Amino acid sequence: MTPTIGVFDSGFGGLTVLRALLQRLPQAQFAFLGDTARLPYGSKSRRTIARYAAQSARFLVREQGAEFLVIACNTASALALDAIKDAVPSVPVLGVIEPGAAAAHAASKTRDVLVIATDATVQSHAYTAACLGQGLRAFEMACPLLVPLVEEGWTNHAVTAEVIQIYLHALLATARTGGFTPDTLVLGCTHYPLLRPTIEQTVARIAPAPMQVIDSAESTAEAAARLLAGQAAEAVEKGPAQIRCFATDSVDKFERLGSRFLGQPVGRVELVDLGG
Amino acid sequence: MTPTIGVFDSGFGGLTVLRALLQRLPQAQFAFLGDTARLPYGSKSRRTIARYAAQSARFLVREQGAEFLVIACNTASALALDAIKDAVPSVPVLGVIEPGAAAAHAASKTRDVLVIATDATVQSHAYTAACLGQGLRAFEMACPLLVPLVEEGWTNHAVTAEVIQIYLHALLATARTGGFTPDTLVLGCTHYPLLRPTIEQTVARIAPAPMQVIDSAESTAEAAARLLAGQAAEAVEKGPAQIRCFATDSVDKFERLGSRFLGQPVGRVELVDLGG
Repeated sequence: MTPTIGVFDSGFGGLTVLRALLQRLPQAQFAFLGDTARLPYGSKSRRTIARYAAQSARFLVREQGAEFLVIACNTASALALDAIKDAVPSVPVLGVIEPGAAAAHAASKTRDVLVIATDATVQSHAYTAACLGQGLRAFEMACPLLVPLVEEGWTNHAVTAEVIQIYLHALLATARTGGFTPDTLVLGCTHYPLLRPTIEQTVARIAPAPMQVIDSAESTAEAAARLLAGQAAEAVEKGPAQIRCFATDSVDKFERLGSRFLGQPVGRVELVDLGG
Repeated sequence: MTPTIGVFDSGFGGLTVLRALLQRLPQAQFAFLGDTARLPYGSKSRRTIARYAAQSARFLVREQGAEFLVIACNTASALALDAIKDAVPSVPVLGVIEPGAAAAHAASKTRDVLVIATDATVQSHAYTAACLGQGLRAFEMACPLLVPLVEEGWTNHAVTAEVIQIYLHALLATARTGGFTPDTLVLGCTHYPLLRPTIEQTVARIAPAPMQVIDSAESTAEAAARLLAGQAAEAVEKGPAQIRCFATDSVDKFERLGSRFLGQPVGRVELVDLGG
């Protein structure tokens, strides 16, 4: 039987990871928790993020029976993966950063990789460390306007295309100055998959050489599906996926925006109180 | 003697209010607290915001000796002013919304007023209520991208001008459809004064009639100066203003971005722990 898969994010951007998981494990049971009362994690200290993430992981494992945990949040993966593993030692835990770096390794021939992410993820240098572990050089840049643009619903807007071009132009120019010859671009934020078409069109137009775009959400779902391969194969006979969504605050915004990220209606979101 | 003035915001946007206060009370003592560990308040419930704001107010009054409190945060002014007054009953408390509405009353001839603000402030309808109290009709619109654009430092950027034009065009068109004939636009967010030149140029170009732009930060500082008029006059002999800045987290970002809002270096920001 497929285990219940717990998926955790500070907000609802991680629903892009849940969407990718649903495509690969369509018969699984999912419990998604967005710690919306305490987002964004990006501006908080490592200790605080670790405490919040550990509480969230315990909720998914102890109260929702999750037997496998996906941390669908780059900041929590970057700063709190060990704290989460300590909080739920009986359960396998998968973050988004290692799968993203592994996918970059599989894609890159030049061994030079670009990463775009939020400010907090870039400052943690978790992608640089994970890429180094794969024998890759990484050049990271924060793109702080992309999350608000996605949340405003401007995914296909001319302004967003312009902002993406400004960011990618600066990224390519700085990487070139630093002696990088990148052929791979990692989307290191769970909001960015909604901008993937525009990002791909922009790099195709302005990059000096072909560039493959890696989506950490996809890579993480693939890694989860591999780890659960035995169970997933047995589960083919089962009914459609079951999803329960939980949030610690602002259920309205979650329900309103969540479907854009999940690619289908999120249904009713249940409010939970983790304290704090 | 001028009393110590406590200035409170969820982040550091409220430094625009402190800047306006400094111009009017150049010899005063200021203690500014940004509750950066728990921002943004906008996505949180009224009860949570009230609890956070009350803790912050107590810190400024009990630990920093503030004898006058300015709530330099539209969300906290909209949702927690009574809770703050209850928390520090011995101290006069001034929010940003009533002074903004009073300034709109003084400026408007048509009695129809437009308000741009964050999502949370708009959803609270605090400006609509305050304007109604002044005999004005208010039409509010959220402009969620403006805060991130200011925090990215794009205050004089073509993209920001385009976003402002899109928002104001939609605002004017919707107001006209609703039968409003506005002649006044209130900036209902402490980040927006940094965009005032672009906003003024845009309304001058696209509004069908002349439109006066009201800055709540300026209006609040004027109201504070009037309330402190006696003390301020006596304080002329004193030295230059003294400012102490406190934050509950991410002191780096505060120090890095704060000077843009304050119009002068913020100096060293002291970290405080309010719990939670």
